[in-house]
Amino acid sequence: MIKLGIIGAGRIGQVHGKSIKNYVQNAEVMSIADPYMNDEIEEWASSMGISNIYKDYKKIINDPQIDAVLICSSTDTHAQISIEAAENGKDIFCEKPVDLDPVKIQKVLESVEKNEVKFQVGFNRRFDHNFRAIKDSVVSGKIGDPHIIKITSRDPAPAPIEYLKRSGGIFLDMSVHDFDIVRYLSDSEVEEVYAVGEVMIKPEIGKFGDVDTAAITLKLESGAIALIDNSRKAVYGYDQRAEVFGSKGSARIENDTPSTVKVSTSERIESEKPPYFFLERYMDSFAEEIKSFVNTLENNEEVPVGGEAGLKSVLIGLAAKKSLETGKAVKISEIVKQYKND
Amino acid sequence: MIKLGIIGAGRIGQVHGKSIKNYVQNAEVMSIADPYMNDEIEEWASSMGISNIYKDYKKIINDPQIDAVLICSSTDTHAQISIEAAENGKDIFCEKPVDLDPVKIQKVLESVEKNEVKFQVGFNRRFDHNFRAIKDSVVSGKIGDPHIIKITSRDPAPAPIEYLKRSGGIFLDMSVHDFDIVRYLSDSEVEEVYAVGEVMIKPEIGKFGDVDTAAITLKLESGAIALIDNSRKAVYGYDQRAEVFGSKGSARIENDTPSTVKVSTSERIESEKPPYFFLERYMDSFAEEIKSFVNTLENNEEVPVGGEAGLKSVLIGLAAKKSLETGKAVKISEIVKQYKND
Amino acid sequence: MIKLGIIGAGRIGQVHGKSIKNYVQNAEVMSIADPYMNDEIEEWASSMGISNIYKDYKKIINDPQIDAVLICSSTDTHAQISIEAAENGKDIFCEKPVDLDPVKIQKVLESVEKNEVKFQVGFNRRFDHNFRAIKDSVVSGKIGDPHIIKITSRDPAPAPIEYLKRSGGIFLDMSVHDFDIVRYLSDSEVEEVYAVGEVMIKPEIGKFGDVDTAAITLKLESGAIALIDNSRKAVYGYDQRAEVFGSKGSARIENDTPSTVKVSTSERIESEKPPYFFLERYMDSFAEEIKSFVNTLENNEEVPVGGEAGLKSVLIGLAAKKSLETGKAVKISEIVKQYKND
Amino acid sequence: MIKLGIIGAGRIGQVHGKSIKNYVQNAEVMSIADPYMNDEIEEWASSMGISNIYKDYKKIINDPQIDAVLICSSTDTHAQISIEAAENGKDIFCEKPVDLDPVKIQKVLESVEKNEVKFQVGFNRRFDHNFRAIKDSVVSGKIGDPHIIKITSRDPAPAPIEYLKRSGGIFLDMSVHDFDIVRYLSDSEVEEVYAVGEVMIKPEIGKFGDVDTAAITLKLESGAIALIDNSRKAVYGYDQRAEVFGSKGSARIENDTPSTVKVSTSERIESEKPPYFFLERYMDSFAEEIKSFVNTLENNEEVPVGGEAGLKSVLIGLAAKKSLETGKAVKISEIVKQYKND
Repeated sequence: MIKLGIIGAGRIGQVHGKSIKNYVQNAEVMSIADPYMNDEIEEWASSMGISNIYKDYKKIINDPQIDAVLICSSTDTHAQISIEAAENGKDIFCEKPVDLDPVKIQKVLESVEKNEVKFQVGFNRRFDHNFRAIKDSVVSGKIGDPHIIKITSRDPAPAPIEYLKRSGGIFLDMSVHDFDIVRYLSDSEVEEVYAVGEVMIKPEIGKFGDVDTAAITLKLESGAIALIDNSRKAVYGYDQRAEVFGSKGSARIENDTPSTVKVSTSERIESEKPPYFFLERYMDSFAEEIKSFVNTLENNEEVPVGGEAGLKSVLIGLAAKKSLETGKAVKISEIVKQYKND
Repeated sequence: MIKLGIIGAGRIGQVHGKSIKNYVQNAEVMSIADPYMNDEIEEWASSMGISNIYKDYKKIINDPQIDAVLICSSTDTHAQISIEAAENGKDIFCEKPVDLDPVKIQKVLESVEKNEVKFQVGFNRRFDHNFRAIKDSVVSGKIGDPHIIKITSRDPAPAPIEYLKRSGGIFLDMSVHDFDIVRYLSDSEVEEVYAVGEVMIKPEIGKFGDVDTAAITLKLESGAIALIDNSRKAVYGYDQRAEVFGSKGSARIENDTPSTVKVSTSERIESEKPPYFFLERYMDSFAEEIKSFVNTLENNEEVPVGGEAGLKSVLIGLAAKKSLETGKAVKISEIVKQYKND
Repeated sequence: MIKLGIIGAGRIGQVHGKSIKNYVQNAEVMSIADPYMNDEIEEWASSMGISNIYKDYKKIINDPQIDAVLICSSTDTHAQISIEAAENGKDIFCEKPVDLDPVKIQKVLESVEKNEVKFQVGFNRRFDHNFRAIKDSVVSGKIGDPHIIKITSRDPAPAPIEYLKRSGGIFLDMSVHDFDIVRYLSDSEVEEVYAVGEVMIKPEIGKFGDVDTAAITLKLESGAIALIDNSRKAVYGYDQRAEVFGSKGSARIENDTPSTVKVSTSERIESEKPPYFFLERYMDSFAEEIKSFVNTLENNEEVPVGGEAGLKSVLIGLAAKKSLETGKAVKISEIVKQYKND
Repeated sequence: MIKLGIIGAGRIGQVHGKSIKNYVQNAEVMSIADPYMNDEIEEWASSMGISNIYKDYKKIINDPQIDAVLICSSTDTHAQISIEAAENGKDIFCEKPVDLDPVKIQKVLESVEKNEVKFQVGFNRRFDHNFRAIKDSVVSGKIGDPHIIKITSRDPAPAPIEYLKRSGGIFLDMSVHDFDIVRYLSDSEVEEVYAVGEVMIKPEIGKFGDVDTAAITLKLESGAIALIDNSRKAVYGYDQRAEVFGSKGSARIENDTPSTVKVSTSERIESEKPPYFFLERYMDSFAEEIKSFVNTLENNEEVPVGGEAGLKSVLIGLAAKKSLETGKAVKISEIVKQYKND
C-alpha cells in the first residue's frame, strides 16, 4: 500500500481524496493538511478514512510513514512545497501549473532530480477517455504523420474576477492545458507561438490586461501546425474538442453528453448539451491520473507526465502572452533565453 | 446508516457490494452469505469492509442488526428467501426475475404486504442515464402521448448453453428487461402479446425449445403499440436502443460508446463500438438503483420498482412464450386466468 | 432516343416529366394525356417541350411513334391501361400499386408476358441513395445473413380524408412501400404477416375501418423477421429509417436533413428536421428510377422492379389487413388461395 | 427570358451551362465562346440547346441580343474581358478570383461602376445549403455576436503541379474561398492576417515557394477572430466544415455524405466519407448562384456577391502570403497602401 498525504484540502484536493478511496486499491490517504482547515473539511476527511488532519503541511512532509504527497495548494506555494517534499524524499504529484515562473519550475526540477524522487504534473486531460482515444489513433499510425492539430477549449463561464486576476492570465490559466495536449498528441515540441486575443465577454477582464477570447497558433518542430481557440464563456457548456489531421487521415473527438437522447418535435431535433462543469466532465480522468501515479510508484516506473511537461507548457504560455502584447510571433527559445538572462 | 446484508456473492452480488461501498453514503454492507463461499470471495468481502461472512443466508435473515437484504442468489431461490426475509421484517431488494412462476411471485407479494416490508425488484435499466433521459422526455409532455415504443435489445454473444437451458428462455431471461422498460416508458399496461422467434445463431438453443432471435409486439391499454427485437448475438457489442414516438414528437436513445473519437481515413469514417459487456454498460445504473433503494428505506418512501413490476414482466414473458408456441396473439388476461386456475 | 408518353398529368406524372427533361439524356416525352387536361397543365407540358397534349390516353397507346408509357393515372385505371398498352406493344412503367386486387394484377402480368413488353413498377425507394447504401451493405456480405429487418416509415400528416377513404387502407397505401423494401433488402419472400393498428391521430380514419398507427411483423422464408412501424403523423417530418441486422453486423440508415448545421445554445443542441414532404425527400430517387427504366429499354435488359414486386406487395398488404381484422397471423399462401378460389 | 453568353467552355463553364438548362427557368444560354473550341465541346453545346458557338468571345460581347455574360475563362483573362463586357453594357458573372492583382480588380470595379452594369463574383459556397444554414443561424441572432469563426477547408489531393505553379499560391487559389466565407459569416471586414504554412505533402510545391498545409488567423474589425486551416491533401475526401461561436451559442456545419448509412461490425462502426470532388460537393450551390444572378438581373436588384467581395478576398490572400514570407502579422491596410503606391 502506497501511503499518501494531500497538501491543500480545497476542491481539487478533495477530488483526489475521493478518487483514491473509491478507485485506487493500492494506495491510501493517511494525512491531509490545509492552513484553512475547518470543521467541514475535517468531517469530510474523516468520512474518507483519513487519519491525520493538519494545518501545517510540514507535518506531512516530515512524516516518515508517508511515501508521496499530492500538492493541491494554491499555485504560488507549489514550488516551495515541492522542493521541501523532494528534500524529504517524498515522491510528488503536483497540480498544474507548477509555477508561473520558469526559473522557479527549473529549481523544482533540479531538486527533484538531485533527490531522485518522482514528480508528476496534474495534466489530467491526458488520462481522459476521449483524449486517450485520439492519442491512440495517432500512435497506431492510422492517421499518419500529424500535419494540423486543432484544440477547442472553452469554459462555460468566467471564474470570479478575483480568481482571474491572480491566475496568470488566460494563457497560463486555461490554454496551458491545451499546450500540454498539443505536445501530448503531436509528440513534438513547440518552436514558435502566435497569439491573438480580445475582451468580448467581460470588460473587467481587460482592465487587468487579460483577454477572455483567444486563438493561438503553434509551429511545432515536426513541421506540424497547431491551432487552439479559447473562450471564457461558452453558454452551452464546457466545450472540449480536438482534431489531429495527418498524412493518412484525421481523428476527432467531440464533447461528451449526459445521455444520447434525441428529441424530435415539430420545432427541431434536440440533443443534450455537454456537461457544464469541468469536474463533471473530467472526473474519470482525475481518478485515472492518480491511479497512474500510484502505479508508477509501486512499479518504480517513469511518471507519465513529468516535470518537463509542466515547464514546457508554462514557456508556451509566456510566449503566447508576449505574442499578444507585441503582435508578433514569439519563439520559445526567446523566452528561454530571456529567463536564463534574468 | 442503513445496515445491509447481501445474499448471494456471485457477480451481481459483488457489483452491489462495490457500489454501496463507493457510492452509497448512507448504507453499509455488514454481512454477506453464499453457500459456495470460498477464500477468494472472503478476501473480496474483507477488502470491501464486510464484517460477517457466512455460508448460510439464514444468519443474515435472523440478524436483528440487519435492516434490509439484497437477494442476489440464483433465481430458483428468490421466492423462498424473499418470503423468509419478509417474515423476519427485513426490507428486500430482489434481483430479477423474482421467479419464473407467477404463482410463486404472487405468494412473495402477499408475504411482503402482510409483513409490511419494502420490496424492490432489480430492473436496473430504469436507473440508466439514457433510459432516464427518454423517460424524462415522455414525462415532460414534449413528445405528447406515446403511440409507438421501440426497443432494440441485443446481447453481444449467447451465454453458455448450460445457463441458457435453465434461464426460462429468451423471453423470461432477456426480454423481461424490455417488457419492464415498455411499462416504464409508456406508463401503461400490456394487454396482448404476439411473439415470433427463430434459431439463427446457435442450433443447440433450438434443441431445448428456445430461440435466439425474436421480435415481440405488445398492445398496451393506452392503445400504444410496442415493438421489441432481441438477438443473442450482436457481433458489434451490447446493443441497447429505444424510441418513444408520440403525438407531439419522438425521443430516441442510442448506444453509449467508450469515447467520441471519429477516425477518417481513405477507407472510411470510423467510430467506436458500444461496450461489449452489460456490466460495463450498466455499471452506473446498478449504483443508482441501490442508492435509490437505500434512500427509499431511509425516507420510508415507496420503492421505485415494486413487486408488481416483477410479476407483470414475467406474465408478459409467459404470454410471449405461449404466442411463439401457438403462433397466435395472447392476452395477458389469458395467462393470469391460467395461473389462477392452476 | 426512347420516345415516351405520360398517362396522367397529376403530381407524380409531372415529377416524371421534369425528371426526364432534366436528367434522362436518352429519352424524351413526346405526349401526355389526362382526362382533366386544363390550361395550366398544358402550359406546363409546353414548357417541358412535350409536343402532344391529349385528354384521351388511347391516343398515346395507339401512336406508333411511342416506345413506352408511364402510367401515372389513378390506381383504379392502372390495370386496364396497362393491359391496353401491353396489347399495343408498349413497354410500361406503372405507378404503385398496380391495383388493389391481386386477380387484376395477375391479369396485367399475363398480358405483359404474352405481349412480351417490359413492365416496371414505381417503387422509387429502391433507387434512393440511403436504401441503396443499406442494400449494398447487405449484398457485400459485410453484415452476413439478415436476421432482423426494421423499417420506420411515418408520414408527416394524414392525407385528406377523401383520399384516405379510397386509398385501400394504410397497409395498401403506405406500408406497401415498406413491404417492397423488406423484399428488396432481404432478398427473401414473406411467408406470414401479423399486423396491429390503432386510430390514435384522426378519429375519422377509424370510421371507415382504417387505422392511422400500425406495426407489422413479417416472417420471411429465410427465417429472418421484419418489423415495420407506420404512422400517418410524425410532427417532425417525413420519417424514413431502416436497419438490417445480420450474423456479421448491422447496417442502418437515418433521415436526410436539409443541412448538417448544429446550433448549441444555453438551451440545447439543435439540428435540422428531416424534409417534410415525400417529393422533397425522394426527388432524386424518382429521377433514378426513370433513368433506370429508360436504360432497361435501350439495352433490352430486365427491368429492375418487375410486376412480381407489384403483386407481392399487394398480397402482403392484404394479409396485413386480414391480420388486423382477425387478430391472427396470416400466411401469404392463405391470401393467394383465397384469390385463386374467387 | 434573360439571354446569356458563356465565355470559356471548360469545366466550370459547362457546369454553369448545364445548371441553367436544368434549373434556371427564366434564362437561356444563347452563345458560348472558347479559343480552344473543338468538336467535343460543340457537340455538348448543341445538346444543351446553345445556338451560337464561337472561338472569339468578342462575338458574344458585341452581340446586342446578349443581356449578360458568364466569364469562365482562365484567371488572367478575367479582368480584360470584364472591362470589355462592361463597356458593352453587359451584366457580368465572373468566376473567382477576378484577378490576382488588386490594381487590375480595381480597374474592373471602376469600369463596372462607370458603365452601370451588374458584376457578380463566383463565390459559390455562399449558396451552399450548409453555409446558408450557418449564416441563417448568425443572422437570426440565435448565437449572438460572433467571437470565433473556424473554417476547415481541405482538398482531397493536390491539383497537378503545372496548375499549382500558376495558381497564385495556396492563399489566392484555395483560401480565397475561405476568406470570403469569413466575411460572409461574420459580416465584418478583416483587419490583420497572420499565416503559417509548411510543405508536408508534396516537396515540388515548395520548390516554387508555395506551401501545401497552412493555417491563417484573421483579426476582424468587430473584434472577432477567425481561424482557417487548409491542406492540399485530405485522404478521406473534400473536407468542408465551419463553426461560428458567439456570445449566445455556436453553429457548426459538418461534411455532407453520399448516404446516412452506418455499418456496425465486430471491427467498428463505419460511416460514409464526404464526397471526394468539389463539383460533386458543391453542384447545387453552382446552380443556386446562377439562379440568384439571373433573378438579380430580372428584378434589377443588387447582386448577392459584388466586386468588393472579389477584391477583399484577394487583399486578404496577399496579406497571408506576405505574412508567411515575413513571419509577421500583416494589416490589410498595409497591402492596400502598397498597391496604391505602385
